[in-house]
Amino acid sequence: MEFGTALEKFREVGRLSNAYSHALGVLSFDSETIAPKNSVDGRAKTYEVFSEVMYKLTVNEEYFDVIDTLEKNADKLDEITAREVELASRSLSQIRKIPMEEYVEYQSTLAHAQNAWVEAKKTDDFELFAPHLERIIAFHKRVASLVSPEMDPYDYWLDEYEKGLDMKTLDAFFEKVRASLVPLIKRVAEKGDIIRTDFMQRSCPIEVQRRFSDYIMQVMHINRDDCAIAETEHPFTTEFNKHDVRITTHYHENSVVSNMYSVIHEGGHALYELNIGDELTGTALANGTSMSVHESQSRFYENIIGRSEPFIELIFPKIKEFFPEQFKDVCAHEFYLAVNKAQPSLIRTEADELTYALHIMVRYELEKRMMHGEVKVSELPSEWNRLYKEYLGVDVPSNSEGVLQDVHWSGGMIGYFPSYALGSAYGAQIVEVIKKELDFEALIRENRINEITAWLTEKIYKYGRLLRPCDAVKQATGQDFDPQYFIDYLTGKYTEIYGL
Amino acid sequence: MEFGTALEKFREVGRLSNAYSHALGVLSFDSETIAPKNSVDGRAKTYEVFSEVMYKLTVNEEYFDVIDTLEKNADKLDEITAREVELASRSLSQIRKIPMEEYVEYQSTLAHAQNAWVEAKKTDDFELFAPHLERIIAFHKRVASLVSPEMDPYDYWLDEYEKGLDMKTLDAFFEKVRASLVPLIKRVAEKGDIIRTDFMQRSCPIEVQRRFSDYIMQVMHINRDDCAIAETEHPFTTEFNKHDVRITTHYHENSVVSNMYSVIHEGGHALYELNIGDELTGTALANGTSMSVHESQSRFYENIIGRSEPFIELIFPKIKEFFPEQFKDVCAHEFYLAVNKAQPSLIRTEADELTYALHIMVRYELEKRMMHGEVKVSELPSEWNRLYKEYLGVDVPSNSEGVLQDVHWSGGMIGYFPSYALGSAYGAQIVEVIKKELDFEALIRENRINEITAWLTEKIYKYGRLLRPCDAVKQATGQDFDPQYFIDYLTGKYTEIYGL
Repeated sequence: MEFGTALEKFREVGRLSNAYSHALGVLSFDSETIAPKNSVDGRAKTYEVFSEVMYKLTVNEEYFDVIDTLEKNADKLDEITAREVELASRSLSQIRKIPMEEYVEYQSTLAHAQNAWVEAKKTDDFELFAPHLERIIAFHKRVASLVSPEMDPYDYWLDEYEKGLDMKTLDAFFEKVRASLVPLIKRVAEKGDIIRTDFMQRSCPIEVQRRFSDYIMQVMHINRDDCAIAETEHPFTTEFNKHDVRITTHYHENSVVSNMYSVIHEGGHALYELNIGDELTGTALANGTSMSVHESQSRFYENIIGRSEPFIELIFPKIKEFFPEQFKDVCAHEFYLAVNKAQPSLIRTEADELTYALHIMVRYELEKRMMHGEVKVSELPSEWNRLYKEYLGVDVPSNSEGVLQDVHWSGGMIGYFPSYALGSAYGAQIVEVIKKELDFEALIRENRINEITAWLTEKIYKYGRLLRPCDAVKQATGQDFDPQYFIDYLTGKYTEIYGL
Repeated sequence: MEFGTALEKFREVGRLSNAYSHALGVLSFDSETIAPKNSVDGRAKTYEVFSEVMYKLTVNEEYFDVIDTLEKNADKLDEITAREVELASRSLSQIRKIPMEEYVEYQSTLAHAQNAWVEAKKTDDFELFAPHLERIIAFHKRVASLVSPEMDPYDYWLDEYEKGLDMKTLDAFFEKVRASLVPLIKRVAEKGDIIRTDFMQRSCPIEVQRRFSDYIMQVMHINRDDCAIAETEHPFTTEFNKHDVRITTHYHENSVVSNMYSVIHEGGHALYELNIGDELTGTALANGTSMSVHESQSRFYENIIGRSEPFIELIFPKIKEFFPEQFKDVCAHEFYLAVNKAQPSLIRTEADELTYALHIMVRYELEKRMMHGEVKVSELPSEWNRLYKEYLGVDVPSNSEGVLQDVHWSGGMIGYFPSYALGSAYGAQIVEVIKKELDFEALIRENRINEITAWLTEKIYKYGRLLRPCDAVKQATGQDFDPQYFIDYLTGKYTEIYGL
């Protein structure tokens, strides 16, 4: 094939792919936000058609030739196209090994799994979700065996979410984190219940919380003409391009803080996407580069900014305006302490920074064992509860607050969870450099978070997928990733808070 | 082509079309409900790709052959497939005459027009919308001239919305309606301001109105697992299949009635779609058969049921529960009179039944003249205001409350408005028959509206597009359409209300 023809066909496939991905993304967002329950069958049919069309779009001799021609002429490609071709080639080498029928059937499985999970969580009935999860796990094993039979199936999926990541790296990372944090958590626990939290569960009308979310997005300098907010069972962020990003949250009448940190976390994901470079628009690189890097940003805003004292000082007067009765006897410092109280708990998304990694370790452990056939789906609830007792010392009262709490498995995300822990650790390393270059605390206190975002944009955001995930920390900090920063960050923060 | 091959290919095109239509429908619904403002360019690109793919799906030699083969073998087709082929053939004979580039460009025009209209209405700036409307009108003229150069271009589009409808029929219909209603409106006006409406603008919190909408949908026996409600600038109904219907409404703090009748009106559209026969699922017939028939149903629920005294008696105790302060000094009969007060006004969707047709006549007149080049888009606001003064006697204070009030033109619906007036008239004829067969008023009073819906399902809904629009009134009533029923209905109702 001529180089020019190949490039043209590559662009055309990209244009079509963008449209299908956009439509599938909106269908999925719609299904989680507003679509009525019984819409699931119609949607599954459309997923099937689209996944079939998308499969055929790249799995054909002509497109193989396109990729081949472009790879052979890599020296003629500009930097952006070269990276697009690299990613397309990797993706093609995987998808072409999966029979179309299995690929298409799986999309339908996902449509039904999502509905089933919502229903299962609502009714606290794991059985409703179990057969769907079994199909999802089976598909993940199958794909790994088809695409990379030489790899461990869980390593295969870890590598999918973060190129180069494997169990060996993660085991070492979690071991190091655990070795440092468990004694720290113990020391904190020995200090006893010294942080006041009586005001944390006071009832705050959801209508007012909705307006409060708008305020929080404003503090984050999120342009609402480019970013919408909606409500879902489980908060998430989705994006179609840098001018169409959506975050979601979940309101709990009795926990204004739950929504607040969901909005800040998802807002962090959004800021990454909203600041992708314009030159990447329409290309396959116009997204955050990996889940770990993405989570490093969402958890950076949520914790390193959002749970800092300057941030609480900035927003607390507004909190008192929105909820005057609820917080009339509370000062900013008390609120700061309360949102940082370290206490082993049930729900990952509401966990404090110190114990958060333990929630991830439970999931990592279970995913690993499911992918290795060492734990059956039917045993999952009891294993979940056992590990929560062992790692966090808490009793799980129901599957809704246990194994069903997270959306990820129902969306087919096996291997995603470690991103959260890694991301948290990346953020701790990155903030050290920011603090050298900017007056970090002052910027937050003065409502100039956008200047921190601008720094991150220059180092990470604007590059989209042009930046390789493994290079992100290095590019931002000038050093290789080192989990010691994370341990030092948490040790410092909790030593101060608890006067250890 | 073999008959069997043709049938198989026809089914496959149908399956793909369904998926694309579904995706386009969800993209459009999303754009009106939640998508951020700047999402428009990305969406326009996806519209372009999809309209191109859909165009190519049917405009090709093979598909011409498919349709040709099926038409020649019509005797071998079952009733449903035969009607699908008939509709597909008609649609193909039109679309193949439009060059693909123009067809695709128009989809992008529509994406931008919708955004521009929302912005224009918000800021009361007709100029923002004018160039888009010009493009839409030009496209409509162009399509009419390409597809049916022998037809009047406005007749062409009337016929599109309701097979067989033309200006001649409509002129006669509106003339007859006007001749009877104008004197009736005059007699009502002479009675003076005898209906109490002081309570109609009292502030009702939107949060409570949202819960009130849920109640109204419950009274209509709408299954919420099949039907969602959302909020938009202009209320509408959209459906993807009988298990995925969405209605929208718009809340005004100072008018609980505005939302209430939006929900009932759109709920009427929804009930039609929700009761399409199961055997039509997945076929091209699984929709309401025409806009007039659709509007006959929405306006049937809105007015003939919703503005009846039994209905107000049924719901008024609940209204007092939701809004105890606002209606503490009001009784059901006063509320009934207030929602039926005849008063020439500005906003079509909030007009009473008596003056409603005059709002349609203004739009009909203007569409006709735009399509004939007798009114330029730039002259539209002044012509609108002039006709409102002439027909309704009201001064239009702003374009937002005037020419920009309706969503239709921005969505490319030229020729749609007459459906509302025709639909109202159909309903008046249909209810006469219902009253002979059912105890209409008792069913409403006893919260058994579902039994009226069941009657309409048997006569109309379950047939979907298998029923020809021109046959709907006949099939439901055993008689040809006769506008005299509508005139008698309004005369009777308003004679009683105003004691004429």
